[in-house]
Amino acid sequence: MYKIRTNRGEIFEANKETLLQILQKHGIYVPTSCGGRGNCGRCKIRILEGKVKSDSFFGISEYEKAEGFVLACQSFPKSDLQIELPAQLITVSERIALAKAELIENIFKTQPSLLSPLVEKLHLKIDPREALADFENLKIAACRTLSISRKLAAELSDFLRQNQWNITLVLSEDEIIDFLSKRLYAVAIDIGTTTVAMALIDLEKGRILDVATCYNSQINYGDDVITRIVFAEENPHGLNVLRKCIVDDINALVNTVLLRHEDGKIYCVILSGNTTMCHLFWGINPKYIRQEPYTPALNYYPVWRASDARLLLEAQIPVYTFPSVAGYVGGDIVSGVLASGLYNNEELSLFIDIGTNGEIVIGNREFLVTASTSAGPCFEGSGISCGMRATQGAVESFKYHRESDSFEIKVIGNVKPQGICGSGMIDIVSELFSNGVIDQKGKLLPDRSRHIVFSQLSRDDSRFIISSDCYITQSDIDNIIRAKAAIYAGVSTLLEEMGISEKELKKVYIAGGFGEFLDVKKAIKIGMLPNFPEERFIFLGNTSLTGAVLCLLSKELWKAANEVAQKMTYIDLSRSKKFMDEYISALFLPHTDWERFK
Amino acid sequence: MYKIRTNRGEIFEANKETLLQILQKHGIYVPTSCGGRGNCGRCKIRILEGKVKSDSFFGISEYEKAEGFVLACQSFPKSDLQIELPAQLITVSERIALAKAELIENIFKTQPSLLSPLVEKLHLKIDPREALADFENLKIAACRTLSISRKLAAELSDFLRQNQWNITLVLSEDEIIDFLSKRLYAVAIDIGTTTVAMALIDLEKGRILDVATCYNSQINYGDDVITRIVFAEENPHGLNVLRKCIVDDINALVNTVLLRHEDGKIYCVILSGNTTMCHLFWGINPKYIRQEPYTPALNYYPVWRASDARLLLEAQIPVYTFPSVAGYVGGDIVSGVLASGLYNNEELSLFIDIGTNGEIVIGNREFLVTASTSAGPCFEGSGISCGMRATQGAVESFKYHRESDSFEIKVIGNVKPQGICGSGMIDIVSELFSNGVIDQKGKLLPDRSRHIVFSQLSRDDSRFIISSDCYITQSDIDNIIRAKAAIYAGVSTLLEEMGISEKELKKVYIAGGFGEFLDVKKAIKIGMLPNFPEERFIFLGNTSLTGAVLCLLSKELWKAANEVAQKMTYIDLSRSKKFMDEYISALFLPHTDWERFK
Repeated sequence: MYKIRTNRGEIFEANKETLLQILQKHGIYVPTSCGGRGNCGRCKIRILEGKVKSDSFFGISEYEKAEGFVLACQSFPKSDLQIELPAQLITVSERIALAKAELIENIFKTQPSLLSPLVEKLHLKIDPREALADFENLKIAACRTLSISRKLAAELSDFLRQNQWNITLVLSEDEIIDFLSKRLYAVAIDIGTTTVAMALIDLEKGRILDVATCYNSQINYGDDVITRIVFAEENPHGLNVLRKCIVDDINALVNTVLLRHEDGKIYCVILSGNTTMCHLFWGINPKYIRQEPYTPALNYYPVWRASDARLLLEAQIPVYTFPSVAGYVGGDIVSGVLASGLYNNEELSLFIDIGTNGEIVIGNREFLVTASTSAGPCFEGSGISCGMRATQGAVESFKYHRESDSFEIKVIGNVKPQGICGSGMIDIVSELFSNGVIDQKGKLLPDRSRHIVFSQLSRDDSRFIISSDCYITQSDIDNIIRAKAAIYAGVSTLLEEMGISEKELKKVYIAGGFGEFLDVKKAIKIGMLPNFPEERFIFLGNTSLTGAVLCLLSKELWKAANEVAQKMTYIDLSRSKKFMDEYISALFLPHTDWERFK
Repeated sequence: MYKIRTNRGEIFEANKETLLQILQKHGIYVPTSCGGRGNCGRCKIRILEGKVKSDSFFGISEYEKAEGFVLACQSFPKSDLQIELPAQLITVSERIALAKAELIENIFKTQPSLLSPLVEKLHLKIDPREALADFENLKIAACRTLSISRKLAAELSDFLRQNQWNITLVLSEDEIIDFLSKRLYAVAIDIGTTTVAMALIDLEKGRILDVATCYNSQINYGDDVITRIVFAEENPHGLNVLRKCIVDDINALVNTVLLRHEDGKIYCVILSGNTTMCHLFWGINPKYIRQEPYTPALNYYPVWRASDARLLLEAQIPVYTFPSVAGYVGGDIVSGVLASGLYNNEELSLFIDIGTNGEIVIGNREFLVTASTSAGPCFEGSGISCGMRATQGAVESFKYHRESDSFEIKVIGNVKPQGICGSGMIDIVSELFSNGVIDQKGKLLPDRSRHIVFSQLSRDDSRFIISSDCYITQSDIDNIIRAKAAIYAGVSTLLEEMGISEKELKKVYIAGGFGEFLDVKKAIKIGMLPNFPEERFIFLGNTSLTGAVLCLLSKELWKAANEVAQKMTYIDLSRSKKFMDEYISALFLPHTDWERFK
């Protein structure tokens, strides 16, 4: 296995994939518009040291070739490499999460008593009594009962004598997980249906050291949880295939962060994800989640081990899993509610997590109710012709000028647009609707703009052209409207069921990968969010990951997370006629009931 | 792998060994005097069904050959076999242990409240609530907190639905070990330095179902614990070699008993053995046990798993290990003290376990002191020219007639003598000494008996001939005297150290493989046991195994065993000058101080 070092200091391991695939796997989005077929010439990177085998140099000049430029999609590593990435490249999801790092650090700086990691170290200087065995001497020095694995028991006697009876234990409750040999690190993992995010944590300092993200490679077997459940159920090895996907993804992420932080060792793992993702990760068939009454195998997971998970860590490392509430409200929402602080508020608040599913929570410190709607993966870039995650090359905002029939776009990284991310989609639909380029049903009106290419053959294929590589089709717009309708209908139904008026809701927390870039006015304009005053909205980003980091660092918060899960009452909208009515009404822009959005 | 069925109903698995080796491995001693070289013609067995490949038919007539007789030592299975063993063959150690079975059954019949196995079953009929996950419904039905392994969690949902929400859990404390599929069995194992014994237990009925024994195959690497420790320390893979020996032995025994009891499954294991044996079994290097201050890695073992032990059982099956007291007083003695009931007596008692080590305990319900002496493995048949375990063909008693210079012997199974077991050795030394055939130092006096063959070359090699295949040498006698001296010196030193007079000792429990056949008068005559009235002696057999069975069946007794270990004070005789003096005095027959044995 070769090592690939980037000019930004990242280190990856190469296997038989192309450089493009390796970089993408580690969340580095190198621009390409041909999908890696070697005929757009855009995924140029420069090899500073080492050898690659390149199958094509399409679009690379002789001068560039002499300088070491190759096409990432056509090049295979043949030695360790030092490579230079295009200058503006930075993964936005990393930026988001690293921003949260400060927030988390501040929590533990201002409330130091809250810092009590799930796994801790304990230094002992043992004064051995002759009549006792080594392990009994250790327990006396620790003043507590302790359990030890066979493996560590076998190493104990030599270790104590070689270190003059000094030892630093890594403890998970009363169990010795390891003898400390490197810095005490841990990872928090958010398993999204579309995206996987991992944060590497220094447990002693209470800090996020690094973040890595990748697509959940289960995507190859279906976009949403239902198709994955069906795949796991209907294929002989389906469950194992999906399990292997996510476990491999996580092992690759762990590898990535550890290569960049070789001074530490991972002694604890915490997982947050929706109910189906957690089942698949643990190799538990989620099939009954799809059948009425939508029952998970378990909501509260024992603390299993890295070896149970097939993670490539020491076998006995504990793996915590966030508890779920129901088949369609998972640990990611529990984690999110924890991270938002909603569960501790006196006033009523609303929490919306917009991912592949849209989950909604209403409550305060007295009660919590929750529901789930199937928004689909479109806001994460999946299922949309030019959809992509909020990374380099994504159109993240869009402004239309009616008079000149022209538009302005903002692209992440200020490069040529490669695709459209969630916030861009909302902007486009909102602007086109406000300016009459689409009607209330979201249908493109070809006579209103020269940018529309109308398809006689299939109206679904009609499109609004943004650039040569980037457009939005009628079918994409319909998808986006269905997604926004699901979210809005969920919120309004839940409010009505609970008899809560919008005035009572003091805060609206928006979570999800694209939360921070969302233009709330435009989201209200298309009828995705309820028409509340703008100042009530608070954008939180990936709260599932944030909550996981918080719990990793605090036994107290982990306890609180379990209490949150216990407290949450799930309301099944799929059986609610009211929800169906609301949904159908919300399939209009912004809604059949204009009054609500005045 | 072929299966071999005997006419007694045992079933063994065949590998590449000879039939003789396979049978011996399973504790069935087929007579042989050539050591399996194929030239004594005595290990005849009959093949009723199946094919064998025989390298020689020495001593088998054409008629016998036609009837299916072969030499066990020269025959290799080539198919499944049905064999007929010689009629009188029964392993005595099995008989001993099976006799104890009744005793144990009676304990639980008379005190039924004591029966609370370490692993129990719990039947549940679940009435699932729709809002809960399957595992949460199960916990509610059980009215308790429970933990579950990943593997079982993955099986739970289907299992519940396939069985109409009826499930029987196998529980070890609060952990679900398995879903009950067969009868609830467990095994108790005594790991002796020389012999391994296993009892298969029906946990529900509180009964011993079967017993199997074999030699500890570590014997190939040394007779006693010290040589094994040295081997583990000085050879690069020594520890692993010894670990594999004992684990393989136990796996073979498990296989043997399970083949005979296919209706059950083993859900729990309990181990009793001396400190070094337990360390080796768990792959923990015992090297510091040999160095002052003789420190074990641990005395109290966590409940590890079958997978940690490399036992071929379900990975999560709990394996309990008896706590040790010190480097040279192990869990076998704790188990023995429990089985004897000494720890519960009001009056003072003495407990002596005569195995490869001789361990001694004095005490009552108030206090327990213990010491260990290195008796060596001679009473178990090792290190003696014609030594053997107390099985078929062993000389178990010996009576000498001075007038006629003749003797009578009793051989187990009433066959031609193959060797001498522990009780036989004590009889021989005692009778020869009483009749002046050996002197006070144990030296053979050639002019006193025509059965002595004197060796000019090496006096050690001089021997008393019992039969063509069976004799005892000067060196054997010296070994036996050293062993009896160690035991006696241990007892007398400990009594003196504690200031206890023999009158105060109301009971003397004798444990060990040969306990039941020991002629106490003769053991006193040679100065092995203190000169107490005969009625105070109680013979208990393998108390290590009995205690292990008791604890497997009773949480209360397991708790008591741990309290016994806590309570026992170890006295190190190896540093005692008094012990050395006693030992040297006890190297005479019966002792330099004749007064003690009047």
